[in-house]
Amino acid sequence: MTVQEMIGAHPQPPSIDRDALVRCIDECFDCAAACTSCADACLTEDGVQELVRCIRLNLDCADACDATGRILTRQTAPDVGVLRGAIQACAAACRACGDECDRHAQHHQHCGVCAGVCRRCDQACNDLLATIG
Amino acid sequence: MTVQEMIGAHPQPPSIDRDALVRCIDECFDCAAACTSCADACLTEDGVQELVRCIRLNLDCADACDATGRILTRQTAPDVGVLRGAIQACAAACRACGDECDRHAQHHQHCGVCAGVCRRCDQACNDLLATIG
Amino acid sequence: MTVQEMIGAHPQPPSIDRDALVRCIDECFDCAAACTSCADACLTEDGVQELVRCIRLNLDCADACDATGRILTRQTAPDVGVLRGAIQACAAACRACGDECDRHAQHHQHCGVCAGVCRRCDQACNDLLATIG
Amino acid sequence: MTVQEMIGAHPQPPSIDRDALVRCIDECFDCAAACTSCADACLTEDGVQELVRCIRLNLDCADACDATGRILTRQTAPDVGVLRGAIQACAAACRACGDECDRHAQHHQHCGVCAGVCRRCDQACNDLLATIG
Repeated sequence: MTVQEMIGAHPQPPSIDRDALVRCIDECFDCAAACTSCADACLTEDGVQELVRCIRLNLDCADACDATGRILTRQTAPDVGVLRGAIQACAAACRACGDECDRHAQHHQHCGVCAGVCRRCDQACNDLLATIG
Repeated sequence: MTVQEMIGAHPQPPSIDRDALVRCIDECFDCAAACTSCADACLTEDGVQELVRCIRLNLDCADACDATGRILTRQTAPDVGVLRGAIQACAAACRACGDECDRHAQHHQHCGVCAGVCRRCDQACNDLLATIG
Repeated sequence: MTVQEMIGAHPQPPSIDRDALVRCIDECFDCAAACTSCADACLTEDGVQELVRCIRLNLDCADACDATGRILTRQTAPDVGVLRGAIQACAAACRACGDECDRHAQHHQHCGVCAGVCRRCDQACNDLLATIG
Repeated sequence: MTVQEMIGAHPQPPSIDRDALVRCIDECFDCAAACTSCADACLTEDGVQELVRCIRLNLDCADACDATGRILTRQTAPDVGVLRGAIQACAAACRACGDECDRHAQHHQHCGVCAGVCRRCDQACNDLLATIG
């Protein structure tokens, strides 16, 4: 909600589709938080050895989502190549992390929630990419 | 909302007051996003020279809030000294940034919105600190 | 130097060319620091209005380099699609930021230094990509 | 080396002791990288269960060091309260992480290297704090 309000208060209107942009920023920051939490929750599980790949991809995805969320938040003098690279990197991280989380969703509720957030962020990235061309 | 759901799905209950914790995490990530946006919006303004201190404090506050949000999200084997240091650093950044944003709120809507977010995050940090003791 | 030592002390050897990897990680973290500094130095310049695009790309590049440096540092259970996306996003940010910094190098020493660091990081990313295939 | 060069090329001289500042920035970024690597190396170890607290503190320390390194890199219009909070938070994270890494240094070389880096960063933070007063 704050992101939408801040983008609305920005002196420069977004150079790309506003709804797709706001949704993608929201999903990026949401996914960064979910992945940070899922990595930590996995660490507490008894069967942490089976979750090593999940933790690693959670950490990667949190970093990619956080950087992409920050980059997309900026409206001043954007470079479309930078935007496209960041969004694609974020989508790749969300896809890999969502796939891995899905494999543990039956046993670990946090992996199930995180998988859903990763899917939504991946989708928001692809939708935004489609509007950039 | 995702943060609350993730903390609820975590195998280890928070070592500190859950409501104060979830609220503080939410405010940290919200404030990081608002400050990233405000720094960028200031950069676009005609009178950017008068907003140089605001931009600098926005960037500091975004970094402090992001790090603190990540640290507070983790529930595994917490160290209270690390938590306290992070929360205090975040509150200090929110206070300084909120004060500076307030000075420009009449002329720039984004500074007004950002000042409000900084105030809420500062308050959430102090409320959480009070529960830690 | 620490990165090389840490990668050497890691129980799992890198899945990709060690020299190209260590160099790319070093360049990513170096470039993140240089871009953070250049954005701030630009902010202090009298002609900050002409440096608005430089500041914006500096901030984007710092975020992309920091995320990519973190992702490349991890050797556990890597996903090649995630690595490739991150490296490509980083190279795109370094290219755009280096080009813009170059345009101001004659007037601002910090832009000249930062342009050089961006070039090296872009090259290190491309060299690492070539070893991944 | 790049940090020193960038601070030297900055139009505004540091408001605090230059040598202590440059050393602290270098140690912060070095420690962020070492902790990111140590967390990942711990994850690969057979006895990962015994390293759960180490991984958690590694991740906290990486986040605190990264944020503090970015904040200290900025020389424009500094707020001493923000600087002090960030440096203290970083020192607290380095102390806790260094202590935990030390406990595993005999069995894991990466913990030994990381403990040393944490000690140096903690010291650099305290030395810088002493110059701020």
